[in-house]
Amino acid sequence: MPALLTLTTDFGTADSYVAEMKGVLISRGPADLRLVNLSHDIAAHNVREAALFLRNAAPRFPAGTVHLVVVDPGVGSARAPIIARIGGQTLVGPDNGCFGFLYDGSEEVYAIDPERIGAPESSATFHGRDVFAPAAALLASGKAPAELGARIDHYEHLPFPLVQLQGDAIDGVVLHIDRFGNLITNIPDHTLRAFLSDGETDLVTTKVAALRVRGLRNHYAEVEVGEPIALIGSSGLLEVSMREKSAAASSGAQLGDPVVVVRD
Amino acid sequence: MPALLTLTTDFGTADSYVAEMKGVLISRGPADLRLVNLSHDIAAHNVREAALFLRNAAPRFPAGTVHLVVVDPGVGSARAPIIARIGGQTLVGPDNGCFGFLYDGSEEVYAIDPERIGAPESSATFHGRDVFAPAAALLASGKAPAELGARIDHYEHLPFPLVQLQGDAIDGVVLHIDRFGNLITNIPDHTLRAFLSDGETDLVTTKVAALRVRGLRNHYAEVEVGEPIALIGSSGLLEVSMREKSAAASSGAQLGDPVVVVRD
Amino acid sequence: MPALLTLTTDFGTADSYVAEMKGVLISRGPADLRLVNLSHDIAAHNVREAALFLRNAAPRFPAGTVHLVVVDPGVGSARAPIIARIGGQTLVGPDNGCFGFLYDGSEEVYAIDPERIGAPESSATFHGRDVFAPAAALLASGKAPAELGARIDHYEHLPFPLVQLQGDAIDGVVLHIDRFGNLITNIPDHTLRAFLSDGETDLVTTKVAALRVRGLRNHYAEVEVGEPIALIGSSGLLEVSMREKSAAASSGAQLGDPVVVVRD
Repeated sequence: MPALLTLTTDFGTADSYVAEMKGVLISRGPADLRLVNLSHDIAAHNVREAALFLRNAAPRFPAGTVHLVVVDPGVGSARAPIIARIGGQTLVGPDNGCFGFLYDGSEEVYAIDPERIGAPESSATFHGRDVFAPAAALLASGKAPAELGARIDHYEHLPFPLVQLQGDAIDGVVLHIDRFGNLITNIPDHTLRAFLSDGETDLVTTKVAALRVRGLRNHYAEVEVGEPIALIGSSGLLEVSMREKSAAASSGAQLGDPVVVVRD
Repeated sequence: MPALLTLTTDFGTADSYVAEMKGVLISRGPADLRLVNLSHDIAAHNVREAALFLRNAAPRFPAGTVHLVVVDPGVGSARAPIIARIGGQTLVGPDNGCFGFLYDGSEEVYAIDPERIGAPESSATFHGRDVFAPAAALLASGKAPAELGARIDHYEHLPFPLVQLQGDAIDGVVLHIDRFGNLITNIPDHTLRAFLSDGETDLVTTKVAALRVRGLRNHYAEVEVGEPIALIGSSGLLEVSMREKSAAASSGAQLGDPVVVVRD
Repeated sequence: MPALLTLTTDFGTADSYVAEMKGVLISRGPADLRLVNLSHDIAAHNVREAALFLRNAAPRFPAGTVHLVVVDPGVGSARAPIIARIGGQTLVGPDNGCFGFLYDGSEEVYAIDPERIGAPESSATFHGRDVFAPAAALLASGKAPAELGARIDHYEHLPFPLVQLQGDAIDGVVLHIDRFGNLITNIPDHTLRAFLSDGETDLVTTKVAALRVRGLRNHYAEVEVGEPIALIGSSGLLEVSMREKSAAASSGAQLGDPVVVVRD
């Protein structure tokens, strides 16, 4: 298996930042390095979006994959560059919580020592190229995290936002709005299952912005084009969508808006 | 030659959908798999744009390439996941016509059997990750389409929109507007050649929206900057352009607008 | 080391142009070809943006890399398709100055002969696919530039825009505005160093649009969130930024605006 290294940034590709990082990775990485772009379109400086993106994507990759992540509003500040080992995946990036939705208590986190990656005088403004990429190239070459820095116990936690269960209602929020205008909530499958008795999926209403959606369905095709629908989406979270239409645009729902599921 | 697998979607890369698919492809595909992004920016849910894109791009790849295509407004509906073999290329995607502009009567089409790709209980909303990617990974590993499903005779045809020839005029439409504002029509090179006698390329006028363009040229450079020009574009279709300017923005032309070519 | 070939275009990926080029590159290139996307989001027809992008990115790649560049407002005009060898890198693209910021007098430039790349009757409108990609594939296969065309002495120079030093002021311009709204100027590190005596970094003011920024800093973190800051950016040029905010949006600064650095 060639060395696998993925990239996730908020840099876009109109500027040369990603290209510069790729040059460093290829120049310093192993000859059989395989670069895979995950995204360069994470919302600028949005650590929470990065965390959700990585929660969904990183576990899909083979064990041993190195994930280089640069979504870093605090570049140059005191936050450490870190390496996190979680469930066979190795993540490299700033210690700002962007790996937080993957942390489950089993993670091992290391603070990168710039001396050990040959970057004692790195650029003050572009750690992606000068710190994270060299570290990722070394990891892809087979170096162990402990060779690049010391293990640490204190690092930024960004816990997945919990839902509130109160009596006959689940209180959640709009966690993400995707390209199609689907409203992805923080309400997990298992919370909904526990809330509902068997077969009760018709007897709930999901409320978000102007929408009131009755029942939970399995497929978009169960409603007419343009109709709203609530279902468990592909990431195991409750979604409110409209068939072939943007639920966000139609309802005015925004990121962070409250979502309430009630028994009818 | 390593196993070659291309991706064409309307997912964008701000969401994690493409990244999740890549994880599945790499985890399940052969060790020498080579992923090539064609586009993740197909207009959302636009099967016709996908069909034109694939008509232009797929035949450029070596025989044996697997093309994974996810532009799928009807996810979860009754449309089958299919594999199509056409001219040495293997395409995997929804049976909604997105391969239609490549069909020439020689194609072989197979309905994917979820059981045979190890996805009996796939996600209801993300067939790209749970059905199409596993199928594509198996095809890239050397499986024959017939091992993944039965050949079918009935599938969605999306014929390339035909032009009307009436007397001294060819009636077509604006089929695509590209990033530069070029208006790509459905009028093929060979139709124009048959319509014109030799050397007559000066004696026609192309009409679209507010534009009246005299003659057919070979190069943008034959007109001044900002002037309109009609020519046979790189995909073998009549194009109306402006040199270093957007013909779409300048003329107000929109997708589907009528295009008429008349003899002067 | 596998053959490395990068792509830089202004095509975007909604149209099939990049995909068609990739098909040609893979079909004609060596079996171990490694394609690396640098950008398909260079501003349309903007040769200067391409030149800055390549100045920053190309030197980061290993010697022997082939860089295919298609930012070509003059497609089909008299400008030649060229190959440029500079500092171990090989660039292929139109002779319009897009490599100009890399030229240092040591470059060797060749005019591609369409006959020698097997493209005597190329498309008039898509040289990226029909001329540049075939040439790049041959170079990646080990052909020498001199096998594809004759060396030339006259080619387009696009010199890096020089700053004016007058008395107590450096006069420059806004050269680039990045995704985060940072204002990258044409004022190089070494000019600033020569202008300042040691330790004087507090005693200058940078003026651009509505902004007056005192001192030069090393890190974004040295100012409060939302405050402006002047520093030497990652490409060795003076930048005016705001911490976690767009300096461009906040100040109204635009590409080409004057930038003045004065001693206090």
